[in-house]
Amino acid sequence: MKIRFFHARILTMQENCEIFEGEVWVEDSRILYVGTGEDKEEFFKRTGKTCMIWDEEIDCQGNLLMPGFKNAHTHSGMTFLRSFADDLPLDEWLQKQIFPAEAKLSPQDIYESARLAVLEYLTSGITSIFDMYVLPEAVGKACEEMGMRCVHVSGLNNFTQSLEILEEEFLKKNKEDSLISYKLGFHAEYTCSKELLEGVASLAHKYQAPVFAHMCETEKEVAECKERYGMTPPEFLNTLGMFEYGGGGYHCVYMSEKDLEIFADKNLSVITNPASNLKLASGIAPIGEFLNRKINVAIGTDGPASNNCLDMFREMFLVTGLAKVREKDAAVVDALEVLKMATVNGAAAMQLTDCDVLAEGKKADMIMLDMHMPNMQPHNHIAKNIVYSGSKQNVKMTMINGKILYRDGQFFVNCEPETIYTNVNRTIHRIRTELEQDR
Amino acid sequence: MKIRFFHARILTMQENCEIFEGEVWVEDSRILYVGTGEDKEEFFKRTGKTCMIWDEEIDCQGNLLMPGFKNAHTHSGMTFLRSFADDLPLDEWLQKQIFPAEAKLSPQDIYESARLAVLEYLTSGITSIFDMYVLPEAVGKACEEMGMRCVHVSGLNNFTQSLEILEEEFLKKNKEDSLISYKLGFHAEYTCSKELLEGVASLAHKYQAPVFAHMCETEKEVAECKERYGMTPPEFLNTLGMFEYGGGGYHCVYMSEKDLEIFADKNLSVITNPASNLKLASGIAPIGEFLNRKINVAIGTDGPASNNCLDMFREMFLVTGLAKVREKDAAVVDALEVLKMATVNGAAAMQLTDCDVLAEGKKADMIMLDMHMPNMQPHNHIAKNIVYSGSKQNVKMTMINGKILYRDGQFFVNCEPETIYTNVNRTIHRIRTELEQDR
Repeated sequence: MKIRFFHARILTMQENCEIFEGEVWVEDSRILYVGTGEDKEEFFKRTGKTCMIWDEEIDCQGNLLMPGFKNAHTHSGMTFLRSFADDLPLDEWLQKQIFPAEAKLSPQDIYESARLAVLEYLTSGITSIFDMYVLPEAVGKACEEMGMRCVHVSGLNNFTQSLEILEEEFLKKNKEDSLISYKLGFHAEYTCSKELLEGVASLAHKYQAPVFAHMCETEKEVAECKERYGMTPPEFLNTLGMFEYGGGGYHCVYMSEKDLEIFADKNLSVITNPASNLKLASGIAPIGEFLNRKINVAIGTDGPASNNCLDMFREMFLVTGLAKVREKDAAVVDALEVLKMATVNGAAAMQLTDCDVLAEGKKADMIMLDMHMPNMQPHNHIAKNIVYSGSKQNVKMTMINGKILYRDGQFFVNCEPETIYTNVNRTIHRIRTELEQDR
Repeated sequence: MKIRFFHARILTMQENCEIFEGEVWVEDSRILYVGTGEDKEEFFKRTGKTCMIWDEEIDCQGNLLMPGFKNAHTHSGMTFLRSFADDLPLDEWLQKQIFPAEAKLSPQDIYESARLAVLEYLTSGITSIFDMYVLPEAVGKACEEMGMRCVHVSGLNNFTQSLEILEEEFLKKNKEDSLISYKLGFHAEYTCSKELLEGVASLAHKYQAPVFAHMCETEKEVAECKERYGMTPPEFLNTLGMFEYGGGGYHCVYMSEKDLEIFADKNLSVITNPASNLKLASGIAPIGEFLNRKINVAIGTDGPASNNCLDMFREMFLVTGLAKVREKDAAVVDALEVLKMATVNGAAAMQLTDCDVLAEGKKADMIMLDMHMPNMQPHNHIAKNIVYSGSKQNVKMTMINGKILYRDGQFFVNCEPETIYTNVNRTIHRIRTELEQDR
């Protein structure tokens, strides 16, 4: 497939956030050309091509092409729990609602929930996800079938999975040149024994691989870790040699000076989840502190039980807005920094350096944002408009690996959205019935 | 015009947030019937009608009809400043960027900016606005022409308008049975002399009318008022007899016990503006405290220079999310309370009791939300989905006063969006040039 996008505004996210007018050419899964369109002869000369025969030519009508968003922390298997239990104290929510419901899940249920999540990612311009769930197999199947790029991270803990499964999955899922890859990880310090964590650290050394986990999400988590080990979670994990090859933490709301030093020293990424941190009353992460120390910050939606939506526009506004109110300074965490977090920084955290920016030879993970909607006008600063006034409503097209999967409100994913909706509604109906019977 | 909506889910917002399946019939500007559709005979008998001949019958396909959102604080004339100056310290933003740019505005510029704002309101399901701006004439013209319901509030201060103009506008704009009405108000305590405020209070007494103003937005504002008068802004204004006939405050971030008592005693409304309060680093309003005291809370976007978008979905999530993180309690400010704030409470603050809910005889200010998008699935709790995962993307239709003004991404407003975009871009280009010449 050869597709030519013309009359486009282009934000490549290489280096700065400047926008120019031009064309993007896509051949199969990769970007063939990005430029003003006026240097075609130079392109032909350089590549040895003589002309291009297009399968499709798309007049972008001044709309914006940019790299897709990287949702750097999510749990796609949990969409069945959206608005299942909200406005409850955290413990009741988790112990009495979420855990019992999750215990009723079959792999098929997770697969259907993940398919629903993928539809939603596409409507929000998300082209890659960093997904933690207990059954990566089911989530991976949904992503592969529908064309979503997915980096799995193990949710290993004392109760599910094992070091053997972790190693097996790591080797199996990183072998193929596919949409799917796999990172070492574990759920969190507080759900893993020291022995288990030592096991993960030794795998990290064996494969020279980064490790990711939930970290410093709540004050309680940090206090309990200090009680157990006399150290914060990052300090403790660092003493185990967990981060010799990098990695990162999800949430990172409560971080000590020493934690920040560890993150900077070990080149760890912070993956911030502002909407989830609000809804679960966890707190506001010190984004300004991360940036001051040049720590890589990426953005995730977290799962749909704790957010409840998978919308990178909401998250982007929150990252800058919450930082400003936290620091009592309207100047901190510039919107352009946030746009980097949602794209290139996410790609860096997930080691997806092959689809981070729009450039020749990169994987074609690209979105088109509608500039003809009132929230994108006037054009004082288009890149800031995306962060401050952009919305899912502006997502005109989502392309992953060179395939258009969503365009003008329609999905092109080889399955009917209504079928997925029916199936997920059936799942939660069944689980509700089972839970009532248990009581 | 007679329009029948059938196969709908219906959320009337009368009393509770329950949803049923049925029909809504609209005749000219009013709702003729809301019900299951199975009681037609009873309706005909009761109304003396024998049958209905429809101009249009709309199959809602299970999508949701509900009252439009009431944007209870905005400055529609400021869209030209969207992304004009962001990520700056508050004083620099206001004094060096916003004020000098606003000083260059002509009435025509304000009119064009307001037209752009109206387009955006329609895409967000907003059917009424409570608009404060220096030239209500220009904003009102845009609203009337385009079909937007607008309650003006005076932005009177020491530098613009006068008590005479205020009284004249109040009498003129409240006379006609139109989309436009007018409330007494002033910009804020800190921009008005005591004499001017006494004048407003005497008008309030003369016309037995409520009064609205920016109030307790920043710590600085409260501190300076205390220095001037030894009292907080609500205390001071109350001593002037400002609130004998009600009214309310925009923002209300920093409120003392005594302020809360005054708001409760005088039946004042709080109009909260969470996105603006984040972006300008003002703070987080104590929404839980307001609810505990049964103070009417409504929601506004504030103007596009300080938000930067006019999106009630973003605001709704923020109201509950920020309350939760402020109180460190995931159970406070239930999403259903927030849905009331965005609809009926806003209508109450604006005295728009004729278009607050879906019921027979009410003005047809109604929106349709798309239930066939993935963020609205599964249907664990549709009303909570609206607050927690809803987005402008779900707005399928916006009807005001019985007229469909926005449907499936198209505007029906008797002017071309592209013309408005061109004009607003021209305005800001001219102003930039003039500002550069001044330097």
